[in-house]
Amino acid sequence: MVHIQLSLILCLFLSFGNFHRAEARIRHYKWNVKYEFRSPDCFKKLVMTINGKTPGPTIQAQEGDTVIVQVNNSLVTENLAIHWHGIRQIGTPWFDGTEGVTQCPILPGETFTYQFVVDRPGTYLYHAHYGMQRESGLYGLIRVAPLEPEPFAYDLDRSIILNDWYHKSTYEQVAGLSAIPFQWVGEPQSLLIHGKGRFNCSESPSLSTAVCDTSNPECSPFVQTVIPGKTYRLRIASLTALSALSFQIEGHNMTVVEADGHYVEPFVVKNLFIYSGETYSVIVKTDEEPSRNYWITSNVVSRNRTTPAGLGIFNYYPNHPKRSPPTVPPSPPAWDDVEPRLAQSLAIKAHQKYIHKPPTTSDRVIVLLNTQNNISGYRHWSVNNVSLTQPHTPYLIALKENITGAFDRISPPDGYDFTEYDIFNVSGNANATSGNGIYRLKFNTTVDIILQNANTMNVNNSETHPWHLHGHDFWVLGYGKGKWDVKNDTKKYNLENPIMKNTVPVHPFGWTALRFRTDNPGVWAFHCHIESHFYMGMGVVFEEGIQRVGNLPSSIMGCSHTKPFHTP
Amino acid sequence: MVHIQLSLILCLFLSFGNFHRAEARIRHYKWNVKYEFRSPDCFKKLVMTINGKTPGPTIQAQEGDTVIVQVNNSLVTENLAIHWHGIRQIGTPWFDGTEGVTQCPILPGETFTYQFVVDRPGTYLYHAHYGMQRESGLYGLIRVAPLEPEPFAYDLDRSIILNDWYHKSTYEQVAGLSAIPFQWVGEPQSLLIHGKGRFNCSESPSLSTAVCDTSNPECSPFVQTVIPGKTYRLRIASLTALSALSFQIEGHNMTVVEADGHYVEPFVVKNLFIYSGETYSVIVKTDEEPSRNYWITSNVVSRNRTTPAGLGIFNYYPNHPKRSPPTVPPSPPAWDDVEPRLAQSLAIKAHQKYIHKPPTTSDRVIVLLNTQNNISGYRHWSVNNVSLTQPHTPYLIALKENITGAFDRISPPDGYDFTEYDIFNVSGNANATSGNGIYRLKFNTTVDIILQNANTMNVNNSETHPWHLHGHDFWVLGYGKGKWDVKNDTKKYNLENPIMKNTVPVHPFGWTALRFRTDNPGVWAFHCHIESHFYMGMGVVFEEGIQRVGNLPSSIMGCSHTKPFHTP
Repeated sequence: MVHIQLSLILCLFLSFGNFHRAEARIRHYKWNVKYEFRSPDCFKKLVMTINGKTPGPTIQAQEGDTVIVQVNNSLVTENLAIHWHGIRQIGTPWFDGTEGVTQCPILPGETFTYQFVVDRPGTYLYHAHYGMQRESGLYGLIRVAPLEPEPFAYDLDRSIILNDWYHKSTYEQVAGLSAIPFQWVGEPQSLLIHGKGRFNCSESPSLSTAVCDTSNPECSPFVQTVIPGKTYRLRIASLTALSALSFQIEGHNMTVVEADGHYVEPFVVKNLFIYSGETYSVIVKTDEEPSRNYWITSNVVSRNRTTPAGLGIFNYYPNHPKRSPPTVPPSPPAWDDVEPRLAQSLAIKAHQKYIHKPPTTSDRVIVLLNTQNNISGYRHWSVNNVSLTQPHTPYLIALKENITGAFDRISPPDGYDFTEYDIFNVSGNANATSGNGIYRLKFNTTVDIILQNANTMNVNNSETHPWHLHGHDFWVLGYGKGKWDVKNDTKKYNLENPIMKNTVPVHPFGWTALRFRTDNPGVWAFHCHIESHFYMGMGVVFEEGIQRVGNLPSSIMGCSHTKPFHTP
Repeated sequence: MVHIQLSLILCLFLSFGNFHRAEARIRHYKWNVKYEFRSPDCFKKLVMTINGKTPGPTIQAQEGDTVIVQVNNSLVTENLAIHWHGIRQIGTPWFDGTEGVTQCPILPGETFTYQFVVDRPGTYLYHAHYGMQRESGLYGLIRVAPLEPEPFAYDLDRSIILNDWYHKSTYEQVAGLSAIPFQWVGEPQSLLIHGKGRFNCSESPSLSTAVCDTSNPECSPFVQTVIPGKTYRLRIASLTALSALSFQIEGHNMTVVEADGHYVEPFVVKNLFIYSGETYSVIVKTDEEPSRNYWITSNVVSRNRTTPAGLGIFNYYPNHPKRSPPTVPPSPPAWDDVEPRLAQSLAIKAHQKYIHKPPTTSDRVIVLLNTQNNISGYRHWSVNNVSLTQPHTPYLIALKENITGAFDRISPPDGYDFTEYDIFNVSGNANATSGNGIYRLKFNTTVDIILQNANTMNVNNSETHPWHLHGHDFWVLGYGKGKWDVKNDTKKYNLENPIMKNTVPVHPFGWTALRFRTDNPGVWAFHCHIESHFYMGMGVVFEEGIQRVGNLPSSIMGCSHTKPFHTP
């Protein structure tokens, strides 16, 4: 007992420092989740906090460590589940934290223990994965230090997590998405830089200062203090509900060196385009005029922006951290210019010394057409004309325990009508249905996924969708414009040095081709990371090697058909 | 199968008509609960609806019938439980619907079936009993027709359910109650008469008509159309979150004939005082000048009223139902005059032909002192210095299945320091604690409960608390002012014709004495029916005859320590 406590204290101690040890350790966290009033952008609303904070505490570990997070649900009537975004959960598919796919929700008053190995170094995320709870503020970063030296040097390591922010509660947003007629919440009220934004309260003069107060220190601008003449690694992550972002540090180039935990062949950007669910590391040198501060900006792209820029301060020490830069914040790129975003996507290749070659052929190709549809009067997103409605018995448990009747055993189609469907026009969308069938993938095979974008229900409109795959990294084989063509586009795939990622955008009216090996037994969600889009059905589920999954812990059970399977 | 469907159809058919049959029938309801936007007082907010409605559908049955309600939880991330208020659940204590006491919550996507016998005629209620969900709008009426003739005559039978209404969500209210410093939501924005109220949108000119619109038909005034020269039975019920009410029909006397399902020796009132959780039937003759309409009013009493009167129209046919009465709505009684409210409490006696004599002595007397306290910086209500925190393993299951560690097995005290405690002063309140111990009552004994009111944490302030007992009706033996005195006050008890009720007020700085028989095996909550007060700990739990409780249905299990007890 004494021994256990001592090692816990040691772990906590170590997690605060820099360390380079070869032995794997246990990183133990105790989290309490509840609703509290916060004013991240000066507007007071209820947010979901972890130990009083949003964003939550950063998980810091070393490659090979075991992370244990005890989550206590102190919400009053609401359940919970937390996803460890980018962690592949090899051998622990039941701790992926995806309600309805890998676990039952955590009930109020209950404590659930997640335990998993962070097997790869890099920058990852965690966030609620139940309903649209992520938007309530339950999110944070995971930083995994490497055992081996990295292919880039830096003096200091800092993290910035980006978000967009609504004033309406997720309950209101969900109710609007589920209403007839469809009620869209609109664009976010502000953009948060590491949990801090600024809503112009005076625009709504009716709001009392009790509700909206720009002098509230909670919404003072985010400040990143830097020492002149140093090299910084900045880990930039996005967990926006809706927005694609352009991130910029006034006057400073950024060299992209890591994407979703994989080393990138370095390239330089002025604007870093980043989509919900992505993480990047960039190298920034603080070699500008040191007598002043500089703007950090976050701006919406890909949607006609009405949300004001998120502004933070890149504070050159010893200037006062609150001193505004003497300049106007830099202008963002045109919101509707796809070219530079496509160019950045294409620029991201594996670092030449860290190339994992993909298999040269695939065993199965699944083309996923994203469309917007009306189904029984409700607005949905569909994939190959099927809008995903998650069942309440998690797939993993239903499959492993042979529970019948939990979901539709007929799989959705591997493609769409390539010859007839016009991706550039509003389709009739008459045939879409809701369903919860899944894709059954043969174990240890190579699967290609083509994300095919299309016109929405509005004329001449196609959106950017960042798709996130659970349980895997995939090779990004290519991006293209228009309709993916099996004959010609496959020839242009990058099989030499493709980056591996877990989240990737499909650009408006374009396609994105991915490849992965079905080598991680489990059931894995693959979905648009825009919170409302997934809620509206824009996702699929893959099963692979279910017979190789170990005994499920009973802690993930207790809902719907799985109640009988819970044992003490 | 055909037979079952036929009988179901027959049941549905019968539930719409008037009927007087001696055979017990099954009343089958299918409810779907979800969040929808509604504007019950012209202000649009999310409400919890049953089959699209708030108040929900009225359950109509006959004495001895079995009511089956299949509740489907279509909330996205939130659980649910529904209490059948006033139904004693004899033989079915597991279907009382009290989360944490008699059942685990119903998870999103799950369907839970309540099944119970309505063994007594009268007017009852149902409402959510989980967190503070009742305030979200999940409530309605249960009307049970008698097999025998009633001791009063009427031509027509109508129901009116009263409520108060907040614009803040229950989430926000709960977060405020659980915050340091305590954030009180304040007085309700409006009073609803059968789900309709009126907030003066122009008082908040900043609110757009999309949010607050007095021309919205949803908030047109409640209209009770009546035929002149008839005798009406009006069933008046209150499910306010906070407010004690005075209900009035301009120019019309009301003869009280039923209280909480028991026949009352008739008496006449102009104002009917009604507390949250109470139901009354009153007889009203439509014998006033028939060429005009009259006001129906609901007003706050017992708290310094800032909420405007609830106004409805008592519409004499064939006057236009929307024609405003030509008069000013009648003035309510002074909010702080306790005397007429105490007088009404004292006036309610059992009908002389329906007297159930109470036992003349009791086996145990439990005196429950209500106080307001600070515990670890949080604001609480306590009973004998213990503030109830419900465990997440329901007491009924923990006791019946001998689950250890689910709650504190030490019972709270049967009284307080009668000689030293000054109920007229703010006490130090230093010794209160939070706890989840319960009272274990010997089966088939007679228990007296004395509710003892006291000063709150504010000088010269004591509130009205309506206490509701689950699983029982109790005899109301007496009300008094000041500190209950075991020597003198017990002598004044009404043992001749006390009314039986399930909800009773304790008046400011006063006491109320109750008696009941512990003849209903189960575990029963007894608590202040003010939603925030119970949430803040103002309740106790009674166990009686647990060994006589039948096998628990596994549908009530699945949370916390009860997961292993769920079987298919």
